[in-house]
Order: sequence, then structure tokens, then C-alpha cells
Amino acid sequence: MKQMTAREIADMVKGTLSGNPDRAVTGVNSIKEASAEQLSFVGNDHYVAQLTASKAGVVLVGKGLAEADAGDKTLIVCENVDAAVAEMLAVFAPAPAVYAPGIQPGAVVDPSARIGEGVHIGSNAVIGRDVVIGGGTVIGAGCYVGEKTAIGNKCTIYPNVTIMHRCKLGNNVILHPGVVIGGDGFGYQFTDKGIVKVPQTGIVQIDDNVEIGANSTVDRARFGRTWIKHDVKIDNMVMVAHNVIVGEYSVLIAQCGIAGSAELEQGVILAAQSGVNGHITLGAGTKLAATSAASKSCPPQSVLLGLPAEPQRDFLYRHALPKKFERLSNKVKDLEAKIAGLKAELNK
Amino acid sequence: MKQMTAREIADMVKGTLSGNPDRAVTGVNSIKEASAEQLSFVGNDHYVAQLTASKAGVVLVGKGLAEADAGDKTLIVCENVDAAVAEMLAVFAPAPAVYAPGIQPGAVVDPSARIGEGVHIGSNAVIGRDVVIGGGTVIGAGCYVGEKTAIGNKCTIYPNVTIMHRCKLGNNVILHPGVVIGGDGFGYQFTDKGIVKVPQTGIVQIDDNVEIGANSTVDRARFGRTWIKHDVKIDNMVMVAHNVIVGEYSVLIAQCGIAGSAELEQGVILAAQSGVNGHITLGAGTKLAATSAASKSCPPQSVLLGLPAEPQRDFLYRHALPKKFERLSNKVKDLEAKIAGLKAELNK
Amino acid sequence: MKQMTAREIADMVKGTLSGNPDRAVTGVNSIKEASAEQLSFVGNDHYVAQLTASKAGVVLVGKGLAEADAGDKTLIVCENVDAAVAEMLAVFAPAPAVYAPGIQPGAVVDPSARIGEGVHIGSNAVIGRDVVIGGGTVIGAGCYVGEKTAIGNKCTIYPNVTIMHRCKLGNNVILHPGVVIGGDGFGYQFTDKGIVKVPQTGIVQIDDNVEIGANSTVDRARFGRTWIKHDVKIDNMVMVAHNVIVGEYSVLIAQCGIAGSAELEQGVILAAQSGVNGHITLGAGTKLAATSAASKSCPPQSVLLGLPAEPQRDFLYRHALPKKFERLSNKVKDLEAKIAGLKAELNK
Repeated sequence: MKQMTAREIADMVKGTLSGNPDRAVTGVNSIKEASAEQLSFVGNDHYVAQLTASKAGVVLVGKGLAEADAGDKTLIVCENVDAAVAEMLAVFAPAPAVYAPGIQPGAVVDPSARIGEGVHIGSNAVIGRDVVIGGGTVIGAGCYVGEKTAIGNKCTIYPNVTIMHRCKLGNNVILHPGVVIGGDGFGYQFTDKGIVKVPQTGIVQIDDNVEIGANSTVDRARFGRTWIKHDVKIDNMVMVAHNVIVGEYSVLIAQCGIAGSAELEQGVILAAQSGVNGHITLGAGTKLAATSAASKSCPPQSVLLGLPAEPQRDFLYRHALPKKFERLSNKVKDLEAKIAGLKAELNK
Repeated sequence: MKQMTAREIADMVKGTLSGNPDRAVTGVNSIKEASAEQLSFVGNDHYVAQLTASKAGVVLVGKGLAEADAGDKTLIVCENVDAAVAEMLAVFAPAPAVYAPGIQPGAVVDPSARIGEGVHIGSNAVIGRDVVIGGGTVIGAGCYVGEKTAIGNKCTIYPNVTIMHRCKLGNNVILHPGVVIGGDGFGYQFTDKGIVKVPQTGIVQIDDNVEIGANSTVDRARFGRTWIKHDVKIDNMVMVAHNVIVGEYSVLIAQCGIAGSAELEQGVILAAQSGVNGHITLGAGTKLAATSAASKSCPPQSVLLGLPAEPQRDFLYRHALPKKFERLSNKVKDLEAKIAGLKAELNK
Repeated sequence: MKQMTAREIADMVKGTLSGNPDRAVTGVNSIKEASAEQLSFVGNDHYVAQLTASKAGVVLVGKGLAEADAGDKTLIVCENVDAAVAEMLAVFAPAPAVYAPGIQPGAVVDPSARIGEGVHIGSNAVIGRDVVIGGGTVIGAGCYVGEKTAIGNKCTIYPNVTIMHRCKLGNNVILHPGVVIGGDGFGYQFTDKGIVKVPQTGIVQIDDNVEIGANSTVDRARFGRTWIKHDVKIDNMVMVAHNVIVGEYSVLIAQCGIAGSAELEQGVILAAQSGVNGHITLGAGTKLAATSAASKSCPPQSVLLGLPAEPQRDFLYRHALPKKFERLSNKVKDLEAKIAGLKAELNK
């Protein structure tokens, strides 16, 4: 088991040590759960109570906590706590799971598929006709890759992912378990003869360095493509509808959804459980708050909250209405009294 | 590759051509993404800017755009743009994926299962005891069909779908990847001895022509059935709880949810991320807005918005409160001034 | 087929019979759907109309309905209708699906895995290196269990569940189809070089008697563990982020979500589609209403509603604003008239 002293850690993260430099730790844990043999951290200087209460042996802290009461813990004061934590996690992390190259037992790979060098195809995965898989990619157990789909190099497709036919994935794409790429978009015509399905004949294109969380779905375009541009990060259970375009470096947090043909420009952030209306465009860098719903297009750098979403200033005004109302109500009571007074005076 | 001239297209969709009739296109794409070799369309007459900016070679438009500035594009003016697009998509669509009849390698089919004619059972699918599958149905790779479940004719069950025991599916049912039919309903008794599971002994029944999107779930009834009636269309990540009844031709859009024992009468529309409370009934044709939550039963043809949902008129009044409040606040200020004036006059 | 008379049922549930004691039933169904050969129940005394309209042969009712007009139905009046229903469901329930011990065809079990006595490993399931599975546990068809994961005794892991590496499940855990345990938490650093993935090196720990509904996801901790304590019940499509702690006996209803590092103390209830912000603590017994979002920590026994969630009293005040506003608006109109009157009088 990996072990490091507080001194060794302080040297590595270029921090300032206070307390016993010889305390040794064997892992990283949260400030609430860490034991005396573990390293922890307090990222926010407000959390001094957690620091005091913790059983951690060694704690990485920011400058604001340099003088905090830490009992017999060893503190290491860092410029950038987050970066220091990341560094130490890399040291103490257990070895990642290894996926040996080769086609594992039970996998069914169509003979027409072109499989790159060093590819791992997990047990009971199914690879369709004319599929292309780039070098170093891992296809997890139980995955399905439909005909003519192309997957780039060094992708990690976790178990039980479904990628339907004719989709295109770039390099270094990560798809977590249960993700579905290329299910049909939701399109119907309401006719006299009932609800008629509109064929969804397009594809999904996912560019380099995209990561998509467990059980999220990206629907196939009605025509053309649903397009997730490079370096987009998507959390669990996010729904991306047909013909949506998600701009580079956008971040879509858990359980949010984007309706058909909406476009997110570069660097948009959708917080958890938010929603974006169909056929609208969110300007670059727009931030949509958790549980909010953007109903219309907005310029770059917008900050939107509420149902329907509005600018922060309007949202705060609306949110404060009960207090404002109470004050106004009191004012009116006051006026009533004054008028009664005037009336009395007048009638004297 | 399929190719058609603007003239041929105009003839096919019975549209009126303006511009070069000989321009040839090889596919359909959105107005934003189309190239000079592609056909596109503008469904909404307001989107004239998109028409002007597009690189599409040929564009289907409504009458309102007949005179729009389209540069050197060829326009085809149509009665019904949507219908024309559908027609052209059918022409240019790539051949759909083919699922050859037969039991594919790795599939495990219980000998007691009765499999109809022309059925495709995908690789590594698992078909349980006494399952019945009707003629022409496709069961995708990696699917699980539990014991005694019956699936009708010409259904398409996409890969990695799970259908638990004793459920009943009609004909022409489409289930997209990751759908779960017949997981246990969420039922417990809170007792002195803890939280005790209530057995979910019913089934899920799905009638003809129902389509269900990726990763949606329909829970097994506590007793009797959870019932999705014919021609219901369900989008991705929709949650239908135990003993719910969804009326014919209802449309459930992405990420909405229906709590236990609720009933939707015919033709109800639940917009994205909306919710329906348990044990209530939404009258036929009711429309529930996106992100709204229906908390109580409502008559047919209701239009409901908000949290909790209320009629449109009430919702709009509530939504306009900040502006109304500001006006009232100014009025009160005005009154204060008037009263002060009166007082001054009185004291003269 | 099982058959019982009303008399036999009344004796079993210790209820008081009124009507024909010899009516026989062969199953249980809802009051709306029951036929003359079925037993039903009315749990809520308000639902007298449903009782009258029902075709059920025998109906379990509470005392408040003892005198209700039930036509020729036989009524059985019970102290506790819910308990009586549960008792009768147990009698009439079809035999549960049986999962015979043994490794089924197509399953791929790593030779290093330690499989307990009487374990069922479903067809085409994949069990990784050094996995431990306790006695009597069922692993459904198509499941994936990653390396070094340990699963306790008598668990039921339904088909197509994914449990990633190094996770820990206790005894009597039930996971419904499509559940994903141990996908990576959603963690990134925003750097000059782009969005850099923070390794998620922790695990998911799920204690005894936890049940998790279809297509829910519980993410792996950044370090340490994401922890679902014993007797927690989770519905479908619930998202639990990295490093979350869910206290014993908590109940998480469909489509709710908990952001990273939040803690729920014992017995918290999150209603459907609700959300919990990251890094906050909800005190024991807190109830968060449907579609509401808890944005900050709260003391035990809190009742919270709204977006953002607030105490019930505040929520109701806010919700009643339109009516209050209308009243105040009328009052102001009244004052305007009075002032005009005063002014007129003064100028006489």
C-alpha cells in the first residue's frame, strides 16, 4: 500500500507545513470520512468547523485556514487546494481497471468490421456490419454498435452502451454505462389517420474528447446530424434531442434536457434538471441555472434562472416579491390610517 | 447516390418552382447545415434570415416566403412544407438497417418459447421460458424478455431493452434502446419494523402502435396492469409508474413522469419534464406545459402550466406579477404624495 | 386458479362482511378495472363514487364506507385496508419468477471470481476478475459486474444492470433493470488547456436492504465512497452524484437527483422530480416536495417546497400572492377614490 509522510506531501504540492511532518497517510478521503491514516482537504475557507471536527491525519488547506485550530492534525497550506488534491489523488489512486486488447469470450463481431490495433471488445458485446473502431479503443461488455458506425481512437465505451447504426464518434470519447446514442428522434405528424412517425434518417456525430454520463441519450437527427462538438462534458441522464447542436466546451449537468433543433453555442453551461426549448439558440457562455427552462434564444454570456428562465435581476426581483408585497401592504395600511385621520380632521 | 433536380422535386411535391430548375441535389439537410448540393426547407415564414444565409441549393418554402430574397437558390413553394419534406426525406433516406430473420449467434432462447415467422433475435439476446413472439418482430441484440411475456407482430425492440416477465405487447410496438418494461412499481408500507416492500404482482400491457423512447421505464402494476393504450407515443427518459393508464393517442415528451395510479384520458399531451401526481385523472385532450406539474384532476381539454399547474389565464396573471407589482407600487407612491399634499393644504 | 369466497376473505383479514358471503373471486384488481370475479378495495373513504361505479364482486373498504351504496357487491369492512389488501395480494399473486441456481448459458464468469452457494448467474451476464458474490444472490441476464466488486447474500440484480469495478453491495439489495452503479462522478477542472477530467478513484457502497429502481444511476466517488445506507428505497431514474451520503430509511422518488457531496440524514424523503444542491445537508426526516429544489442545508424535520425550496408557510404565502395582490390592488383603488373625495371636499 502506498504511504507518504506529511513532509513528502508538502514538498510535492509545494505547500507550507505546520504540525508534525512525520505523520504518514495511505490514502485520500473527504474531510467528514477521513481517518487518522488518511489525507484530506478543506477547499473552502468557510468550512473551518469541518476541519476542527475531522479525524484526518493530514489536511490540505487554503491560506485562509493557515491559522485554524486543527488539533494534532498536520496542516499543509496550499496556493491552490484543488490542484493539490488532484495531484495527491493521482498518487494514491488505485490502479485503474485494465482492459486487455482482444476480442473477449462471447463477443459477436461481424467479419466486415474493421477493428484497430489494441482494441478491447468486451465479453458479449455485439459489433455490427461495416463498423470501424479506431486503435486503442475499449468497447465494454454487453455493448451494441450498429452497422456502419465509426468510432475513433482511444475511446472508452463502458459496458451496456448502445450506439445505433451510421453514427460517428471522434477520438478520446468516453461513454458511461447505459448511454444510448442514435435512438430515433421524437417526430410525428398528426394526421386524420392518426399519429404518423416521421422517419429519422440522420445520424449522431460526437467529436473528440466528449464524455457522456450514465444512461444519457442522444437522439438521431431527422436528417443531417445531431452534433456534440469537441470537449463537451455531459453528466448522467441528460437528454439531447434530434438535430440539436451542442457547442465546444459546453457542460450539461445531470438530468437536463435539450429539445429538438436547439443550438448551444460554445461554452454553455446547463445546470442540473434544466431544460432548453426547441429551435432556439443560447449564445456562447450562457449559464442556465438548475431546474430552470430557457424558452427563447438569448445573447452570449446570458445568465438565466427560473421557469421560464429570465435574467438574474428579473429573477431576483420576482423571487423577492413576497417581502416587497408585505412592505407595500403595510404602506397601504398606513395610508388608510392617514386618510381616515385626514377625513376626521376635515370633519371636525 | 440518389440525385434529383429541382424540377423533379417540384413535380413530386406539387410545388411551384422559382429559380434554376436544373439544380441537382443529393440529400436533405437543415437550413443551417445544408450545402449547395442539398435540399433544405424553411417551415416557418418568420425564418427568412435563415433562408437568406443558407448555402442550400434548393429550398422548400411556404407561400409566405415565395417572394423572399433567396440569392441563387432555387425555391419550391409548397402548400404544406412539412408534408413535402417528409416526402423528400423518404426519397433520400439511406436504406434502413436490415435485421435478417433468424436467431443470431450468442442469443439464448428457451426451448419453450414460441417464436413467430420471420422473427429476428439479435446476438446475445435472452428469451425466457414460455415467451411468445409474433411474426416479423425484431428483438435487438442484448435484449432480455422475461418468462411468459407475449410480444405481438411486427414489433421493433431495439438493442439492450429489458422486458420483464408476464408483460403483454401488441403489434407494431417500437421500443428504443435501454427501455425497461415491467420493473417493480415503487410500493412500500412504513411499519414499526421498517420499510416493507409491497409485492408488485401485476403486469404492463402495451397496445398496438405504441413507440417508447430510449431509457424510458414503465413499471409493473401492484396488481392488474399498468396500461399504455394504442397509438401512444413516448419520448426518451419518461417514467410511467405502476397502475398508470395512458389513453390512446397521448404524447409524453422527454423526461416527463406520471405517478402511480394516475389516468390520462385519450389524446393527452405531457410536455418535456412535466409531472403528473398520483391517483388523479387528466381529461381527454389535456395539455400540460413543459416543466409543469399537474397536482389534481382536470376536465377534458384543459391547458395547464406551472408548479403546481394552473389554467393558462391564472398562470399568465401570476407570471406578470412583477410588472403589476411595480405599477401598483408607483400608484401607492403617488397616493402618498397626494395625501401629503392634502395634509399640507389642510394645515395651511 | 386460486379461488376464495367473501366469507373466507373476511375471516382471513378479520373484517366485517356485508352482502352475499358466498361470492367467489379469483384475483385482485383496482376498483376501476376489477370484474365481478375479482376482489378490489377502496383505500380512501372519499372515493365512494368509484365504489358505486365498480364492477368488482367483493370490495375491501374502511369504516367510513361501511354504509355506502355498493349495489350487489359484497363489502368487507377492515380496520386497515392497506394491510388487508397486502394480505390478499400475497394470496392471489402469481408465483414469482424463479431463477434456478447455476451459471446459465452464455454467461462469462472470470475464473478468479468467488461465487457463493445457490447463486444464479443469468445468460450472457459478465462477471469480472476477483468479483465476490454472496450465497443466494441472483445476477440477471446481461448484467455486468466489474473487477473486485463484492455483492452480498440474497441480492436480486435484475437483467441488464451495470455495476462497475470495486463497488460494495450489502445483503438483500435489489437493483432493477438498467441501473448503473459506479459510473464516474462528474468532475472537471477548468484550465487554460481546456476542461480536464478529475479522476474518480473512489467507490460506491450500498448497504443492506436497499432497493433501486430501473435506470437509476449512482456515481463513483471522487475518492472515498458514495454511500447509500441501509434500508434506503430509490425509485426509477434517480440520479445520485459522487460522494453523496444517503441516510438510512430515506426514500427517493422517481426522477429526483442529488448533486455531489450532499448528505441526507436518516429518513429523508425526496418527492418526484425534486433536486438537492451539492455540498449541503438535509436534516433527518426532512421532506422535499415534488419538483422542488433544496438549495441550502436545513434542520431535521424540515418540510420544503418550491424553486428554490422554502418552508411550507413561505411557499403558501408566495403561492397565494396573486389573490393577495388582487385584494391589495382593490384597496388601493378604494384609497384613490377616497382621496379624490377628500380633495373635492377640501376644494368645496
